[in-house]
Amino acid sequence: MSLLSDLFLPHISRLKAYTPGLQPVEAGWTKLNTNECGFPPSPRVAEALAQELSDGAASLRLYPNPTSAPVRRAIASYHGHGLGVENVIVGNGSDDILNLLVRCLGGPEAATGFTYPSYSLYPVLVEIQAGSNRVIEFDRAMQLPVDQIALSSAKGFFLTSPNAPTGVAFANQQLEEILKRFRGILVVDEAYAPFARDNAVELLDRHPNLVVVRTLSKAHALAGIRVGYALGHPEVIGLLDRVRDSYNVSRLSQVAAIAALNDACYYSALIEKIKSTRDFYRNEWQRKLGWFSYPSEANFIFVEPQDARGQTGLAVAQSVYAHLLNRKILVRAFPNHPLTALFLRISVGTDDEMNLVHQALLAWQPTAQSV
Amino acid sequence: MSLLSDLFLPHISRLKAYTPGLQPVEAGWTKLNTNECGFPPSPRVAEALAQELSDGAASLRLYPNPTSAPVRRAIASYHGHGLGVENVIVGNGSDDILNLLVRCLGGPEAATGFTYPSYSLYPVLVEIQAGSNRVIEFDRAMQLPVDQIALSSAKGFFLTSPNAPTGVAFANQQLEEILKRFRGILVVDEAYAPFARDNAVELLDRHPNLVVVRTLSKAHALAGIRVGYALGHPEVIGLLDRVRDSYNVSRLSQVAAIAALNDACYYSALIEKIKSTRDFYRNEWQRKLGWFSYPSEANFIFVEPQDARGQTGLAVAQSVYAHLLNRKILVRAFPNHPLTALFLRISVGTDDEMNLVHQALLAWQPTAQSV
Repeated sequence: MSLLSDLFLPHISRLKAYTPGLQPVEAGWTKLNTNECGFPPSPRVAEALAQELSDGAASLRLYPNPTSAPVRRAIASYHGHGLGVENVIVGNGSDDILNLLVRCLGGPEAATGFTYPSYSLYPVLVEIQAGSNRVIEFDRAMQLPVDQIALSSAKGFFLTSPNAPTGVAFANQQLEEILKRFRGILVVDEAYAPFARDNAVELLDRHPNLVVVRTLSKAHALAGIRVGYALGHPEVIGLLDRVRDSYNVSRLSQVAAIAALNDACYYSALIEKIKSTRDFYRNEWQRKLGWFSYPSEANFIFVEPQDARGQTGLAVAQSVYAHLLNRKILVRAFPNHPLTALFLRISVGTDDEMNLVHQALLAWQPTAQSV
Repeated sequence: MSLLSDLFLPHISRLKAYTPGLQPVEAGWTKLNTNECGFPPSPRVAEALAQELSDGAASLRLYPNPTSAPVRRAIASYHGHGLGVENVIVGNGSDDILNLLVRCLGGPEAATGFTYPSYSLYPVLVEIQAGSNRVIEFDRAMQLPVDQIALSSAKGFFLTSPNAPTGVAFANQQLEEILKRFRGILVVDEAYAPFARDNAVELLDRHPNLVVVRTLSKAHALAGIRVGYALGHPEVIGLLDRVRDSYNVSRLSQVAAIAALNDACYYSALIEKIKSTRDFYRNEWQRKLGWFSYPSEANFIFVEPQDARGQTGLAVAQSVYAHLLNRKILVRAFPNHPLTALFLRISVGTDDEMNLVHQALLAWQPTAQSV
């Protein structure tokens, strides 16, 4: 039946799919591998959904608002900075938005740029469009290569800030340096920005070639509803809207998103809690284990395990990963590149979850000489 | 700011978006313009959603099942015919699935085929991929041009059956004739097949180049949840999965879809009711008004209004459209092509809705000589 794949476009037959983190279906796992929020969403979400479903879910027979207009309004008002609905597009998760951006900017005739490391979905999206990549590698310091990006020949450049999987955030001053000189669209993927000191939203009114991408999956504890969005110049938003599926966000997801966006108070407390937990354990692992991690402005810690002799390496990272897996604790490893292979990315969960992973890391240490 | 659109790919800057049917937000409209179901979904849908949300919507913090695996199982078992999960892919509405298929099959180097009329989204999806079209026009009889399709040089051919907006269904024997001779993938878009006498699912095991696309938006009264799917050969499904967004179907949509698919009893009664209403009014409009409509196997009637002198035409159709709009009854017009401009497409709603539109059509007739 290999003739069948010949009926598909050649670059599609050759594709490798993006690999999402493991999603175990059985209970009993401590799941710190996909940067979900350890805490539930605002109670207003359940209330709003119950209200929407109160007539026996009869409204589900109708299509949702095709432009998610009420969600766009809620997002514009959530961000302020003079943003209006014309600056907002809503997607089926931020992956939908990133997909639209790649399809609008990249293809066989126009390269798409991104850094390594960053969100590993970008190269997959580019390949699907038979496009070419301009990959700019960080060095171990993970400082932003401003000049290389600014001079890149890409039509669209995707930058994750805070970066994944390192957690390192980039300063607005550096972003602005790029925006002034780069002759394309700079997409700043701010999935983790609610956990950072700063973000790029305030740059939007000065830089029409900036697009900021956000999600409700992380800080809003709503990975299950699939809502992400982009902020940008109205002309850019208008172009993306032409490529978007007409009804890309379900009725219930729209209801849940609006309820969450309107409860800023709940989420600011949640975010403060996650940040303080993050800073506490980052410090603990440095102090008690001597393990390096990058200063994280996200909801995860990218940590470099050391064995008892102070050695790091792929084998050390893999040993810790396996040790955690044995205890049904899932974290994420990135073994395929020297810049990431020595590290593990551990999502910041609840106090119980963090204590569990902390105890497990302490328990690994003594036997590490055998690695 | 026209420089900004120059940063986008040229074919994207030139795009026209798909125009979905009007979705009025105020109450008081009789909405027979987008072929939604007039009746609510199975009561099991609300029950299953309430159950999922019973812990304060805490589960929404987690990503959904990335492959919608339990939905695939429910779909395979719903259809029978020896289908397994390996034959099913689930999308964010069938638009997501059609989008994946166009991206896998068509582009600058490979033409995509479809008929006119058919679902007006196909050419938009092809344009987004900078692809070329092979459009095969029906004649007034709306009989399937089997030879033209079979000999088409398209790599993927999209056929809507029952067709939109005519409601005319095509026989499996004709589809099989195409499948044997066509040297590409035939996508049969069966959004309306639950209202038809027959469907193409039974052809799947004999024809690996057949893909059947379905939706829960019409017969399952769940347009609001955005769930559609494709059935096909495992190799085809595997290729589509590589292009699909990782988490394309929300948790709540998965829950709602499974509940609906497991209540075949509720839906078979619902579908019988809609079919009998459809056949009753089609007959009434023929008998009382003398208006032609195609034999419909869908949940709508594509009807050709006549004025009191027995004249049809764009002006007549537009007059009836405006008359209904005045009474806050929304139907759909397709004024841009001679094959469709003389007609209106009226979704089959509840008895109350149908009586309302019926009385309105009767009331239009006497004054029609002034058109």
